[in-house]
Amino acid sequence: MAPQPTREDKFSFGLWTVGWQARDLFGEATRPVLAAVEAVHKLAELGAYGITFHDDDLVPPGSSPAERQRIIDEFKAALDETGLVVPMVTTNLFADPVFKDGGFTSNDRSVRRYALRKVMRNMDLAAELGAQIYVFWGGREGSEVDFAKDVRAALDRYREGIDLLAQYSIDKGYGMRFAIEPKPNEPRGDILLPSIGHALAFISELEHHEMVGINPETGHEQMASLNYTHGIAQALWQGKLFHIDLNGQKGPRYDQDLVFGYGDLLQAFSTVDLLENGAPGGGPTYDGDRHFDYKPLRTEDMSGVWESALANMELYLALRERARAFRADPEVQEALAAARVAELSEPTLEPGEGHEQLAADKTAFEDYDLEAARTQGYGYARIQRLALEHLVRMR
Amino acid sequence: MAPQPTREDKFSFGLWTVGWQARDLFGEATRPVLAAVEAVHKLAELGAYGITFHDDDLVPPGSSPAERQRIIDEFKAALDETGLVVPMVTTNLFADPVFKDGGFTSNDRSVRRYALRKVMRNMDLAAELGAQIYVFWGGREGSEVDFAKDVRAALDRYREGIDLLAQYSIDKGYGMRFAIEPKPNEPRGDILLPSIGHALAFISELEHHEMVGINPETGHEQMASLNYTHGIAQALWQGKLFHIDLNGQKGPRYDQDLVFGYGDLLQAFSTVDLLENGAPGGGPTYDGDRHFDYKPLRTEDMSGVWESALANMELYLALRERARAFRADPEVQEALAAARVAELSEPTLEPGEGHEQLAADKTAFEDYDLEAARTQGYGYARIQRLALEHLVRMR
Amino acid sequence: MAPQPTREDKFSFGLWTVGWQARDLFGEATRPVLAAVEAVHKLAELGAYGITFHDDDLVPPGSSPAERQRIIDEFKAALDETGLVVPMVTTNLFADPVFKDGGFTSNDRSVRRYALRKVMRNMDLAAELGAQIYVFWGGREGSEVDFAKDVRAALDRYREGIDLLAQYSIDKGYGMRFAIEPKPNEPRGDILLPSIGHALAFISELEHHEMVGINPETGHEQMASLNYTHGIAQALWQGKLFHIDLNGQKGPRYDQDLVFGYGDLLQAFSTVDLLENGAPGGGPTYDGDRHFDYKPLRTEDMSGVWESALANMELYLALRERARAFRADPEVQEALAAARVAELSEPTLEPGEGHEQLAADKTAFEDYDLEAARTQGYGYARIQRLALEHLVRMR
Amino acid sequence: MAPQPTREDKFSFGLWTVGWQARDLFGEATRPVLAAVEAVHKLAELGAYGITFHDDDLVPPGSSPAERQRIIDEFKAALDETGLVVPMVTTNLFADPVFKDGGFTSNDRSVRRYALRKVMRNMDLAAELGAQIYVFWGGREGSEVDFAKDVRAALDRYREGIDLLAQYSIDKGYGMRFAIEPKPNEPRGDILLPSIGHALAFISELEHHEMVGINPETGHEQMASLNYTHGIAQALWQGKLFHIDLNGQKGPRYDQDLVFGYGDLLQAFSTVDLLENGAPGGGPTYDGDRHFDYKPLRTEDMSGVWESALANMELYLALRERARAFRADPEVQEALAAARVAELSEPTLEPGEGHEQLAADKTAFEDYDLEAARTQGYGYARIQRLALEHLVRMR
Repeated sequence: MAPQPTREDKFSFGLWTVGWQARDLFGEATRPVLAAVEAVHKLAELGAYGITFHDDDLVPPGSSPAERQRIIDEFKAALDETGLVVPMVTTNLFADPVFKDGGFTSNDRSVRRYALRKVMRNMDLAAELGAQIYVFWGGREGSEVDFAKDVRAALDRYREGIDLLAQYSIDKGYGMRFAIEPKPNEPRGDILLPSIGHALAFISELEHHEMVGINPETGHEQMASLNYTHGIAQALWQGKLFHIDLNGQKGPRYDQDLVFGYGDLLQAFSTVDLLENGAPGGGPTYDGDRHFDYKPLRTEDMSGVWESALANMELYLALRERARAFRADPEVQEALAAARVAELSEPTLEPGEGHEQLAADKTAFEDYDLEAARTQGYGYARIQRLALEHLVRMR
Repeated sequence: MAPQPTREDKFSFGLWTVGWQARDLFGEATRPVLAAVEAVHKLAELGAYGITFHDDDLVPPGSSPAERQRIIDEFKAALDETGLVVPMVTTNLFADPVFKDGGFTSNDRSVRRYALRKVMRNMDLAAELGAQIYVFWGGREGSEVDFAKDVRAALDRYREGIDLLAQYSIDKGYGMRFAIEPKPNEPRGDILLPSIGHALAFISELEHHEMVGINPETGHEQMASLNYTHGIAQALWQGKLFHIDLNGQKGPRYDQDLVFGYGDLLQAFSTVDLLENGAPGGGPTYDGDRHFDYKPLRTEDMSGVWESALANMELYLALRERARAFRADPEVQEALAAARVAELSEPTLEPGEGHEQLAADKTAFEDYDLEAARTQGYGYARIQRLALEHLVRMR
Repeated sequence: MAPQPTREDKFSFGLWTVGWQARDLFGEATRPVLAAVEAVHKLAELGAYGITFHDDDLVPPGSSPAERQRIIDEFKAALDETGLVVPMVTTNLFADPVFKDGGFTSNDRSVRRYALRKVMRNMDLAAELGAQIYVFWGGREGSEVDFAKDVRAALDRYREGIDLLAQYSIDKGYGMRFAIEPKPNEPRGDILLPSIGHALAFISELEHHEMVGINPETGHEQMASLNYTHGIAQALWQGKLFHIDLNGQKGPRYDQDLVFGYGDLLQAFSTVDLLENGAPGGGPTYDGDRHFDYKPLRTEDMSGVWESALANMELYLALRERARAFRADPEVQEALAAARVAELSEPTLEPGEGHEQLAADKTAFEDYDLEAARTQGYGYARIQRLALEHLVRMR
Repeated sequence: MAPQPTREDKFSFGLWTVGWQARDLFGEATRPVLAAVEAVHKLAELGAYGITFHDDDLVPPGSSPAERQRIIDEFKAALDETGLVVPMVTTNLFADPVFKDGGFTSNDRSVRRYALRKVMRNMDLAAELGAQIYVFWGGREGSEVDFAKDVRAALDRYREGIDLLAQYSIDKGYGMRFAIEPKPNEPRGDILLPSIGHALAFISELEHHEMVGINPETGHEQMASLNYTHGIAQALWQGKLFHIDLNGQKGPRYDQDLVFGYGDLLQAFSTVDLLENGAPGGGPTYDGDRHFDYKPLRTEDMSGVWESALANMELYLALRERARAFRADPEVQEALAAARVAELSEPTLEPGEGHEQLAADKTAFEDYDLEAARTQGYGYARIQRLALEHLVRMR
């Protein structure tokens, strides 16, 4: 039986996901507008926990203050009625032509000031709705022409922007945590902060670095041939996995935003295992909402939209169940032990050992049994086989 | 006329590059062993400044202490004779089967201890030869089976290793700076610290982070579809571009190690411009050796090896010349001004301006002339055209 | 001096290229509608030879018959006035939501019938305008879900469609040649006939295969890591290079449609050399229009559009000039001879030699001097270096 | 319970797969030589049906005629003893430095003659061992320098070579079928016949085209971002799927040769479904041996080798079982019907209908209910969800 999602599973969706009208670069919309209130009700029905949005998803640009208030009120009423929460909010700094050269890093300074104000306005709304995480995806921060963008200056401006907004959250008492979402390219030829690593490195230079982490998206890393599970493992290691965007992608090509697991299913399995169970040797799990950032296929009508929304949650649950069974399987435990997976948690040095002691240890080098170390098998093939057996339930 | 390299240009080559015998996964060596002494003489003749090596490039594994000493003595004599220097040295922690699961992050703790010792031994030699930079490429630090490698623990061990070796350099008074070289994959399915960003983020967690930077390789970033020029710009921004590996690569595929510029020639142009001239708005240039890490084609004999070695330097010099002409061209300066490239160096905020002042500035948001900002052209097409015209010398 | 394009250079542009309003998946249009008549005049001014279009580029869907006629009349008048020709026409079977599952291969048979009729209507217009080439880009012919698309049946339907339309051209006396344009993915997860090779193979199964060739696009092949120059060389070998779409792309990622040469500049150089000068050992050159299918950057206003249109032509001309100089350079000729490039045109077998004779030739195998063959250098590094020297005009 | 392979399942392995000593470009062998006789026995034990080889896998280059005969005799004895068959044989035209510029398409004519002779000699052995399929993987047929390889001439020579060898098989009465194996790159920068499509197109130009088909490898297509299932579907459509190489690959990067299914597991599922059950609307299945061309991880000793060999077969069987259940599931059948998957097998035209009749059918165009066609949902999301549910056994 396929597992059923419940609120306790903490699944959330962007309003822009189920609400995507399927307009792409090559063609017109195939689906009608989805009212936010309807999205809330339907997601609640399906078993979701939360809904997230960009400012312009919820309130169409150009709305009058009265319209804006009405929309917000209706949205809040729907949240109240259903119990759905808003764990995360973000800003659209990419659709309006004003942002064609970016928001925080546009060569045009007046655009940068406008962008900051647009974020501030929406942070107020996010706070009002109780969002704890505020996401920054700088999809237009980048360039196609290396000679026309001063990356050094751009990173200065990016930092200036985040520093200001962090101060804003602090001063307003919003208590938000920020999460930067990396992406290598598309819609810009090259986007700044293109991977989990670049974003983490950037964060280390921020004034309020402790309140800024990342919101990595499965497909964005895979567009750069990077292992998503490894990426979030490094983010967890640095205490920076503040939020997460789950979806599917078939390697380096256009941003597909497939249903979670519909790209690299094996890696989705290890991702869920890490999020739910932590690293093999212990360490933090992820406790935020399991957020899906996918696009329902353009061939589908609304029934296909809800079908695929459910598919995200259902597959996550199935993988969670398999991951638990995998960890609990005595044969797996035996195989992990044989592969010395836990031995990697043992420090390489003895307690108190420094380089002098290491240099003096002949068993480490001069008398080391190289031949044994060269010919030993690590037993990884067996672990992979066991993982597959659990994944497709051969055991 | 093709430009001629001289020592002042600071070009250097890995001994393993011109010395590659062209054995690959699918076939046997096509070239004879190249003696280190011959490499030194020939590189000096061609106009190079430096030579670098892995321990095992210079001293074949299994050499007796006497042989080792003789090899080192001959190598030093050749350096003395030619004036070639050794700006960088590194360790081979990937060829010996003992490292099949990595050096610093092998699941087998005894391998990790052996790896540290191998590095320490070679650091002594590096110091003796005057190398100021010590490179770490962890080509086998990674995995193919997500479930068999605890990435959290692996990063702990990686840090432990680098911390120890940094202490070693300090205690010995070697005064070295370390440079980590990222790579996304190959020979492992996924390598730890897969990009410039991941390495920079990792470094921020090190005990002696101030003495550790990166050694980014053109092709390694491009294997992940990342913009190399952007990557080194971020590294310069963080003060971490300690060394550099220049070569060519045709996007995500096997590691090609082509001659510098023979992959993405346009990006090679912007790379040279950044290294030589700094960011458009100022900032540091790169002052270390211009190091080539390439593989001469397997179809070539030794004359092809030297032909391609020269090609690396010659093309770099041509690009340097073009970059200078580009910057000096009044039409380019006019185009850069029109594109407001320098405006990105102006802070977005006024001096002393905080979010309250910004919020009070109606020209920034409420009264902002959106239409003008939306319809303006940034003039990047013109800059790119001018860059191409300089690159292929249409002007 | 940058070269100036003239009509004799036979450059053409799609109306949809300079007319692209820069609406993408993530954002709204940044440029106004460009009237076809204005495009004709402006392209003529810049030195172009032809203009091409999809039915819906020229005549907005939903136009009344009278409007349609007026648009066509005005377009023809502009052509007459400027001397611009229409060498190629094509059909838009991808933007209308009706084609969300493809045109010729939609699971819905009524859509397939509608698609055929839409093509027939536009072929009438193409004939009226004197187009000799009719292009088929099946951007929506494909799938994201392997289990939901019967590829065998789809290829049957694809063939049925092309066969019918070929018969239509024959019966109407249009004398057109068809050109199929391959693409691996985007906007569909996987597109049918994904590469030059797949299209050529498909064509071999068509009823009127002699009147069907290909229209390969630079970037589409490079999205699949394929060498475009090699691809068009195979097409020329099979007599099937009927038309061409030149642009730029940075490897496997979203379809960038950069200016020609702004992706892989070296490959653009060999492409131009092949088109203009034929294979090294002779063989046909390409004699159709040099057609650019690119997208002006979204950051640009109309001046940037025309700047980049000109950049396509200018760079092509520069590469043509360099290719001629390369071929004429005695040192290059000497290097090509040394690399035995022409020897590949000599049959491997003697005239009349069969396997018996070959088997009897001991010099071919038993007495073959393997060592000499193993250690010889092919001299390719030198040719590449010479090519680069010509490309960036070091010689 | 994991399924157990038997001879009836027709699984086969290359001797070079389980026998790979794990020497790669960056490191030395980690495993001992595996004797062919041992491989035969062990594979038979595991439930395999066949073994395949390159000439040099079985008989080390440089063996004396007597040694060669002894090796062959022992190999045949092992086959007799175990019942294992040799369904396919191939030639190594890539490891010996003599082939550094290719075999059939080397610029050096004498190398081409040598290559043909090497194939002829091994075809004799293949015939002796009863192999019905002879595979051609031209891994070194290609180039890194576009200007140094005349692709037109190279295709002439490629054709000349295959034509001669086809004649050889005919004249000798070997009754073999040839299968060309495409690959996009590695070890050459670009390989000729880079995809299934290019190979099929090439075959259409051969003298004995009817006896030549393809041997597509999963990973080779996926290195070019191509859908393997689509590729083999086109090959089946053209009657050319003569043999198959199953393995795993994580998109465009180095050739990984992972266990089948360990790359894109979903596509492996649709591959098995197509091979076993044919296209949804009927058509041929694949009836040759299910051949695995993978490389056991370099971290593994021989127990890991056999573990992974078994994993290939086990996963294939699991997918076969799931594919049958998927097809038999009434809900799936209902969903396929709703998505009109079978409707694609209905001709678009009525029997006898030509373009005149189609043009006269107003329901096809003038009166077509566009709105209904635009807003309908195709139901693909549901099919994908059902496929996933079967794959990981949620149903």
